Amino acid sequence: MSPALKPVAFLLGTWRGEGQGEYPTIKAFRYREEIRFAHNGKAFLIYSQRTEAIDSDQPMHAETGYLRVVGDDQVEFVIAQPIGFAEISPGRISGTRIDVESSTVGRTPTAKAVTSISRSLWVEGETLHCETRMAMEGVPMVRHLMASFHRID
Amino acid sequence: MSPALKPVAFLLGTWRGEGQGEYPTIKAFRYREEIRFAHNGKAFLIYSQRTEAIDSDQPMHAETGYLRVVGDDQVEFVIAQPIGFAEISPGRISGTRIDVESSTVGRTPTAKAVTSISRSLWVEGETLHCETRMAMEGVPMVRHLMASFHRID
Repeated sequence: MSPALKPVAFLLGTWRGEGQGEYPTIKAFRYREEIRFAHNGKAFLIYSQRTEAIDSDQPMHAETGYLRVVGDDQVEFVIAQPIGFAEISPGRISGTRIDVESSTVGRTPTAKAVTSISRSLWVEGETLHCETRMAMEGVPMVRHLMASFHRID
Repeated sequence: MSPALKPVAFLLGTWRGEGQGEYPTIKAFRYREEIRFAHNGKAFLIYSQRTEAIDSDQPMHAETGYLRVVGDDQVEFVIAQPIGFAEISPGRISGTRIDVESSTVGRTPTAKAVTSISRSLWVEGETLHCETRMAMEGVPMVRHLMASFHRID
């Protein structure tokens, strides 16, 4: 492992959990989620996640990208989403917590009008918590997703 | 498989090959590459690739993202790169050829000043060809990568 990854090594592994989604424009929903942080020896984590419906196991959302470590306490999250978003989210590490906020959310011509995304990931004890907030045209930055995970690998 | 994926089904699978990189600011280089296009039943392909040095097998570049099919002949490529780019590239399908050009290249604060990326992927016979062109501040759009692949899975 690259020594640069030491501050984010607490994220490494495969995590499974459940979460709840909410947003002013939709009905609240629950989901199952798997998150994976891996590395290939370079100074970034390889990130992927997918969610599925709790009742039907049908795939819901997915994301993939990289968490770059660019200083002792600084990170840059680069994330592609199949709903047409390409996100650049710089942020900070504080102990076993990471907070990032998008500087740009690129959108494909057919994607929804999301303007900003912020994310927090933190480990308390053996549990990983992930919270995602989102702003759209006409909706301020509010909580969208909140999930908790245990490490399975 | 989603019926929407029929126009891009020719990309499905895992492909291995070799390529050559060049750019006005760097020395030309050769690389080995593996590309994978998969699906999960939805109307997009799940894309990932990684390159390695031909002599040492050391990891070089990697990318991950999604190829959305948004019409009979229209696609939207969403790609995250660990060198700090988040790319939105709409484009067209013509038979077994796809051409896209970035509408936005999001960049992290520490990323190089790439301003635009265009990509062509086409299958001729049993061979997949991928060409990537890139513009930076001070450098017009010129060819950066050219690789050919055979399907291994």
